[in-house]
Amino acid sequence: MTVEETAEKIRTMEIRGAGRIARYAAKALLDHSQTLSGRDMASYRKEMQQAADLLVSTRPTAVSLPNAVNLVMKSLMGVSDIKTAKTNLEERAAAFVRRSEEAVSKIGKIGARNIRDGDVVLTHCNSEAALACILEAHQQGMDIEVYATEVRPRNQGHITARTLSDAGIKTNFIVDSAARFFMKEVDLCITGADAITVNGSVINKIGTSQIALAAHEARVSFLVAAETYKFAPCTIVGERILIEERSPDEILSPEMRKELRNVTVRNPTFDITPADYVDLIITEAGVFPPEMAYTVIREQLHWDSSDLSSDYPYCEEE
Amino acid sequence: MTVEETAEKIRTMEIRGAGRIARYAAKALLDHSQTLSGRDMASYRKEMQQAADLLVSTRPTAVSLPNAVNLVMKSLMGVSDIKTAKTNLEERAAAFVRRSEEAVSKIGKIGARNIRDGDVVLTHCNSEAALACILEAHQQGMDIEVYATEVRPRNQGHITARTLSDAGIKTNFIVDSAARFFMKEVDLCITGADAITVNGSVINKIGTSQIALAAHEARVSFLVAAETYKFAPCTIVGERILIEERSPDEILSPEMRKELRNVTVRNPTFDITPADYVDLIITEAGVFPPEMAYTVIREQLHWDSSDLSSDYPYCEEE
Amino acid sequence: MTVEETAEKIRTMEIRGAGRIARYAAKALLDHSQTLSGRDMASYRKEMQQAADLLVSTRPTAVSLPNAVNLVMKSLMGVSDIKTAKTNLEERAAAFVRRSEEAVSKIGKIGARNIRDGDVVLTHCNSEAALACILEAHQQGMDIEVYATEVRPRNQGHITARTLSDAGIKTNFIVDSAARFFMKEVDLCITGADAITVNGSVINKIGTSQIALAAHEARVSFLVAAETYKFAPCTIVGERILIEERSPDEILSPEMRKELRNVTVRNPTFDITPADYVDLIITEAGVFPPEMAYTVIREQLHWDSSDLSSDYPYCEEE
Amino acid sequence: MTVEETAEKIRTMEIRGAGRIARYAAKALLDHSQTLSGRDMASYRKEMQQAADLLVSTRPTAVSLPNAVNLVMKSLMGVSDIKTAKTNLEERAAAFVRRSEEAVSKIGKIGARNIRDGDVVLTHCNSEAALACILEAHQQGMDIEVYATEVRPRNQGHITARTLSDAGIKTNFIVDSAARFFMKEVDLCITGADAITVNGSVINKIGTSQIALAAHEARVSFLVAAETYKFAPCTIVGERILIEERSPDEILSPEMRKELRNVTVRNPTFDITPADYVDLIITEAGVFPPEMAYTVIREQLHWDSSDLSSDYPYCEEE
Amino acid sequence: MTVEETAEKIRTMEIRGAGRIARYAAKALLDHSQTLSGRDMASYRKEMQQAADLLVSTRPTAVSLPNAVNLVMKSLMGVSDIKTAKTNLEERAAAFVRRSEEAVSKIGKIGARNIRDGDVVLTHCNSEAALACILEAHQQGMDIEVYATEVRPRNQGHITARTLSDAGIKTNFIVDSAARFFMKEVDLCITGADAITVNGSVINKIGTSQIALAAHEARVSFLVAAETYKFAPCTIVGERILIEERSPDEILSPEMRKELRNVTVRNPTFDITPADYVDLIITEAGVFPPEMAYTVIREQLHWDSSDLSSDYPYCEEE
Amino acid sequence: MTVEETAEKIRTMEIRGAGRIARYAAKALLDHSQTLSGRDMASYRKEMQQAADLLVSTRPTAVSLPNAVNLVMKSLMGVSDIKTAKTNLEERAAAFVRRSEEAVSKIGKIGARNIRDGDVVLTHCNSEAALACILEAHQQGMDIEVYATEVRPRNQGHITARTLSDAGIKTNFIVDSAARFFMKEVDLCITGADAITVNGSVINKIGTSQIALAAHEARVSFLVAAETYKFAPCTIVGERILIEERSPDEILSPEMRKELRNVTVRNPTFDITPADYVDLIITEAGVFPPEMAYTVIREQLHWDSSDLSSDYPYCEEE
Repeated sequence: MTVEETAEKIRTMEIRGAGRIARYAAKALLDHSQTLSGRDMASYRKEMQQAADLLVSTRPTAVSLPNAVNLVMKSLMGVSDIKTAKTNLEERAAAFVRRSEEAVSKIGKIGARNIRDGDVVLTHCNSEAALACILEAHQQGMDIEVYATEVRPRNQGHITARTLSDAGIKTNFIVDSAARFFMKEVDLCITGADAITVNGSVINKIGTSQIALAAHEARVSFLVAAETYKFAPCTIVGERILIEERSPDEILSPEMRKELRNVTVRNPTFDITPADYVDLIITEAGVFPPEMAYTVIREQLHWDSSDLSSDYPYCEEE
Repeated sequence: MTVEETAEKIRTMEIRGAGRIARYAAKALLDHSQTLSGRDMASYRKEMQQAADLLVSTRPTAVSLPNAVNLVMKSLMGVSDIKTAKTNLEERAAAFVRRSEEAVSKIGKIGARNIRDGDVVLTHCNSEAALACILEAHQQGMDIEVYATEVRPRNQGHITARTLSDAGIKTNFIVDSAARFFMKEVDLCITGADAITVNGSVINKIGTSQIALAAHEARVSFLVAAETYKFAPCTIVGERILIEERSPDEILSPEMRKELRNVTVRNPTFDITPADYVDLIITEAGVFPPEMAYTVIREQLHWDSSDLSSDYPYCEEE
Repeated sequence: MTVEETAEKIRTMEIRGAGRIARYAAKALLDHSQTLSGRDMASYRKEMQQAADLLVSTRPTAVSLPNAVNLVMKSLMGVSDIKTAKTNLEERAAAFVRRSEEAVSKIGKIGARNIRDGDVVLTHCNSEAALACILEAHQQGMDIEVYATEVRPRNQGHITARTLSDAGIKTNFIVDSAARFFMKEVDLCITGADAITVNGSVINKIGTSQIALAAHEARVSFLVAAETYKFAPCTIVGERILIEERSPDEILSPEMRKELRNVTVRNPTFDITPADYVDLIITEAGVFPPEMAYTVIREQLHWDSSDLSSDYPYCEEE
Repeated sequence: MTVEETAEKIRTMEIRGAGRIARYAAKALLDHSQTLSGRDMASYRKEMQQAADLLVSTRPTAVSLPNAVNLVMKSLMGVSDIKTAKTNLEERAAAFVRRSEEAVSKIGKIGARNIRDGDVVLTHCNSEAALACILEAHQQGMDIEVYATEVRPRNQGHITARTLSDAGIKTNFIVDSAARFFMKEVDLCITGADAITVNGSVINKIGTSQIALAAHEARVSFLVAAETYKFAPCTIVGERILIEERSPDEILSPEMRKELRNVTVRNPTFDITPADYVDLIITEAGVFPPEMAYTVIREQLHWDSSDLSSDYPYCEEE
Repeated sequence: MTVEETAEKIRTMEIRGAGRIARYAAKALLDHSQTLSGRDMASYRKEMQQAADLLVSTRPTAVSLPNAVNLVMKSLMGVSDIKTAKTNLEERAAAFVRRSEEAVSKIGKIGARNIRDGDVVLTHCNSEAALACILEAHQQGMDIEVYATEVRPRNQGHITARTLSDAGIKTNFIVDSAARFFMKEVDLCITGADAITVNGSVINKIGTSQIALAAHEARVSFLVAAETYKFAPCTIVGERILIEERSPDEILSPEMRKELRNVTVRNPTFDITPADYVDLIITEAGVFPPEMAYTVIREQLHWDSSDLSSDYPYCEEE
Repeated sequence: MTVEETAEKIRTMEIRGAGRIARYAAKALLDHSQTLSGRDMASYRKEMQQAADLLVSTRPTAVSLPNAVNLVMKSLMGVSDIKTAKTNLEERAAAFVRRSEEAVSKIGKIGARNIRDGDVVLTHCNSEAALACILEAHQQGMDIEVYATEVRPRNQGHITARTLSDAGIKTNFIVDSAARFFMKEVDLCITGADAITVNGSVINKIGTSQIALAAHEARVSFLVAAETYKFAPCTIVGERILIEERSPDEILSPEMRKELRNVTVRNPTFDITPADYVDLIITEAGVFPPEMAYTVIREQLHWDSSDLSSDYPYCEEE
């Protein structure tokens, strides 16, 4: 697939999901590099940079996209020899794809060590990484019981319940409002993340912060399972994560809305859980307290001040 | 309607709602008294007591029922003259019905004084008393904006939204999970109550305690609007309020439940908001901090130690 | 002094201070009663009620005024004999004046029992009742050290510092902003109150709530010293205590304000300390937790539902 | 036993324990009344008052003593007929003794309603009232598990463990320091009380407040089981409960203390749990939130302002 | 200006302000280097070190001074060639000056991204960096409203109000004590910092911690804007930041103090805001949670263990 | 001593204590290296690795052991020349031993800077590092007073009291339960640590977390003194620190246990203090907030992703 095709599919959300977007972007850069003749370093660098810019521009709020592109493009730094450059970049892109594919299973293994036999775990929404921890613990033979929420308005909890039920895990299905009611029965909460800011705030499905607050109130651990590319480098230079609002139709039918003339539906997709309510973040590179987000961005995603200072190539325009 | 008929309708929930149950019970006692010949005090007292016992037995967990019956029966205390007794009881019963009918509008007037022009109010579920405060404030010309929740699983929020919209009040409709997300926009929360215990805990629609917690976290006032007969005298002798679980069908269809073999639906109707998160309770008899529940039960509902000690006639068997 | 004269002096604030207002009003009713011929009960009652209404109308937000008037007028309840009525009312009025005059010294004695030898006490603003506790403890021979705040914008702390210094008490004088800095040195905070609501909120000099919060954060006791007539009965029916804003000249000179064209001075006199941050309230009738405000109003100020329900004679118009 | 003998035995602590002291004092007054000729009301009243004063003076810090004496002496109020007076007083004294004897079993019945089948209960020290709740729940067939602390320095936990073990209740025995470690396993804490102040602070065995704090941190209910005569009326007029320090020998042997020249043993018997950490207090007269202490003192112990104001006959000298 | 002259002006506070001190010190080292002949590396190094030591010794508690000097002197590490050494040092010094000059405007740009259109911002004292964020947001066209405090005892709030007013920003001017009263109207607090310790405590103008506490209580974000040279490296080896007390004359006139014989004025300039109450710190190098202070010191200020361990050349003597 | 002998002594706990274990292991590797001929790099590396593996396997839960071994073995990375390798490894091992020996005194010096003249310090258990801070402050002439707990069940507080007493430090000896009672007298808590996890949780003697909670409640600083090798690298990949339970005999005698048939003694040695309650951790390499644990592990203990990822040589088997 050409860079243009990939960009188009990311823009139209044919390719979606933080992990898939990241992998397709890295793969597009790899493929693009292979199509380039490899004779002139300057023009190679320029063409690759254009491809990178195109990809990054397609979904300005998807955190994994600039992370993937930056990681791949980093391989060109300080390299003047075109052959080395191509090799480096292509290897780096391939490595990123591979690492991304393995990330969820690594998170599952690391996360399962935070679960004890007999634990009751609450999860919210349908996070592949969070479920990986629970499933892995179950597969290791632990006796796990889960509380899964409905997740209004799109009821992603149905998928979660199905996954858990099919795996043979005893699951309690509850409305989102019942999380605090059952919190005293819970040993551990695990959710995913859509993005993590430099000060450790976790952006995730609406309702997550309410559950984290209730967990905090009851001294119940609250864990977040997230691939490292969910960390948002541009928050270092002050960017806010945009909280998208989705269609009101998800909550009230158009007919009903017509009748309710003074009613506006507000439908934010995510909320923000402050670092204070998060005990740890489980990534494929290990476990971190949320306050360590900066270090994860620097060490694992290889962003440095040159990426962020001066003109912030991958961050929002001033 | 005879006592037996009333009792039957309360039992079958044809008569429902805390206020209606209470009024029907008082009315049944009044009517019953009028059917009695009024010749012999001892047999009058006995027959009335039987009627009272029958009524109370129909819905052991409905707090308003023993409150109404006890209040009416209290009129017989220390009276030996049958004529006086009948008059007292019938007057007391009629007064109870009248006071109960006026309670919501009184609450509205008192509650509206706690709202300021320009306030943004969040409400949960569909409480007549809570809405009365908001509607009264609006009718007094205040510029009010409301956040109303969906209230899964039975979506009572739709009714609330309709009432507010029809009254011309700007209303934002949100999923239950979004309460904390919007809490920073909110000046005041008002909800109703199904029961209030002696230590000021508020039993109300599932999700209420989560919202109260989020309000507390953000220094937003949390008010409860409740008729005095929502206070639960038997909690003085240690009774717990039973948290009913309703049909799983409200949350997951039978077909879906059949497929999800390891999934149990848990559907508690209410949760318990601790007094710490409740700023005040608005009743038709005035405003009280939740810790004053005992005094409300004593002064407003006229329960005293003779009702509660020894054999606890209206409270659960030991 | 006639009722009209007293009313005028209260209105023009020639008579000011919660205690003095209350005593003058009671005295005016006493004097007025003595001028009445005492022949016709109906006209006596009517004239006294007119006098009462006039007095109450002069300072609608002064809490002590309706408390005094109501307490005196209560003496007419159920009395049909004009002679008894006059005697009752005049005795009650005289008793109120006497009790009010003794209140501060009683508070001092009770409050001193809450101070231990060697204690460091922080006070804010210049409350006669709060200082009475400190001075009494000092006079009993305890070794007390005080932190007194400056109390912007009117610097009432200067008066407090003078009183303490003249009494020979070691005093530290600090800006209002330094309260939290020194809180770790403090054993006990004591302030006065301008009004106390039915749910135990304490309305007092701006800055009080900030100090109470800092005391709470450091597990330092926070005590309020207040005569019982500071409790606000009308908050039972939902009235809010109005937080007056005073002249901007107290904060910025008119010249400066003219230059600062986009600057508005906000100068609220009081703030509201929630009951959660108040350990106890010391009155002349004993010590109460703030949640007991309703009981104080009922028992000590003799307000009952007839004063509050129906038409709320002494409370703000609906 | 004469009043003098009883007084002596209370002073020498031959008679000890809040309940026993109270009952012996009431019984002594009853016996004393019976020895009096009953001819002259004035001298009867005087002699009884002398007896009362003698008894109260023996243990100035034992809360139950003035409560019992005051309750009995109250019967003389407004009585001018010596015969009625004697009858009243003797009946009241006998009733007090009976009620006191039944108190613990009533508390057990009321408290057991706050325990649910399957609950894990933590208790500290060896409180008859707290154990009554647990034992009653067990006898009703509930499956209860208990955590009992060691209770340094006098190891009263050994007695608690024996009582529970003998009753057949599964008990975990832990050092006092392990309370927070196991708190996540606990559903409910129940302790006794030595005294309860007017603002709901609970004075109980050293370590109680630490456990209450850890319970609060983990949203675990904390209940106090206490007879009504544990409430301390004189705290209304500002008296502090004295926290006694016992012999250092209980903690370090005299030999060791001799060697450790710069070491002072501090051995306070009690600590103070603030009302904020206490969910409810279970008495034989029902369940109260701690903020209701004043009402308990007024209604259940019949103290009124005449007992407390003016010269405070039963409270510490000013 | 020679090193001696610069040192003298820093000592006499002719040169003051964290940024100016730092720039003058760097400039002095640059100038000094240029005066040196550049023939012998050993003597060059020695002379530069003497100059550095002299500068650092002038204001032992000014955090920016050792940061600037250390940063410049670092350039000599591992360099043996005098020419390279001189070039390095002079370039590094010039770069430091430039970066310092640009720091505030960079902070403004990064900080403005944390402000949203319509936000109400509270600031305390008169911080150039904090104001830069607000002014930048205003210049970008956002509709901003500000609460500015008076800042006793030196009223720096007057300067802040003037700056904001002149820029056309709607500003509310309040006494320091009113911060909690208005906190519910505020979306965001931004202040500066005088120093930041290794565990993220923020030392800033007296009163800051009280405002941060009130913001935390109301879930209002609290941001600190500070150049990286405000971070205090020597706190890594345990140094405390000295909280200076200024002249009592700033608070009470000498005449008044003479009269108030038992009054001591306490006038600390700064207080300490714990990291728990700080959401993020905005520096010219990006946004950090306060817990990241160590990383800022290492990465941005280039302190490493050789600067801190062994003999701690720039830190306080043991 | 051979590697085998050392391993045996560590296994049998003849060598115990985090520091001693670490030093003996490093010394064993040094000695072992010296015994190797030094001809073939491959076999040298292999033999050393076998020795390392043997040592690590002896006490899988002792955190200092893999830290020491990994630090020494790191010296072989990227070295192909046997001579260099031997020199490197032996130097590194010797340096580790030296640094470990000096660690406590360095901690004492750094920690003493966090103590102020006149401070009252509370410590729990008997930590060499924590005592070093107190003793150093005392030796510097500060007037320090200490509260030392008894530390049930093994009464390590006796040793602490003796050390402090012998040093001439005024010490108060209290039961563990009295920590909260005296907390208001305390300026600072300092304890040691057995292990510190990647998210800053401190594993230490049972009771520590309860004291930290009480310190937090009273705004009292809580410091942990710990050598860097107490940080637990394997928690990065999710390992939990095992909380060992010791013999029930330490708490109840076998005779007593026989009698108490339904009693189980629970005797956990450690508990877990969350990072939220720890203000800073004092190590020989400087002061860190607990959230910086990852950085300490990376920088000070030289663990990197190669040690942790792939097959986690030094961490628990998956």
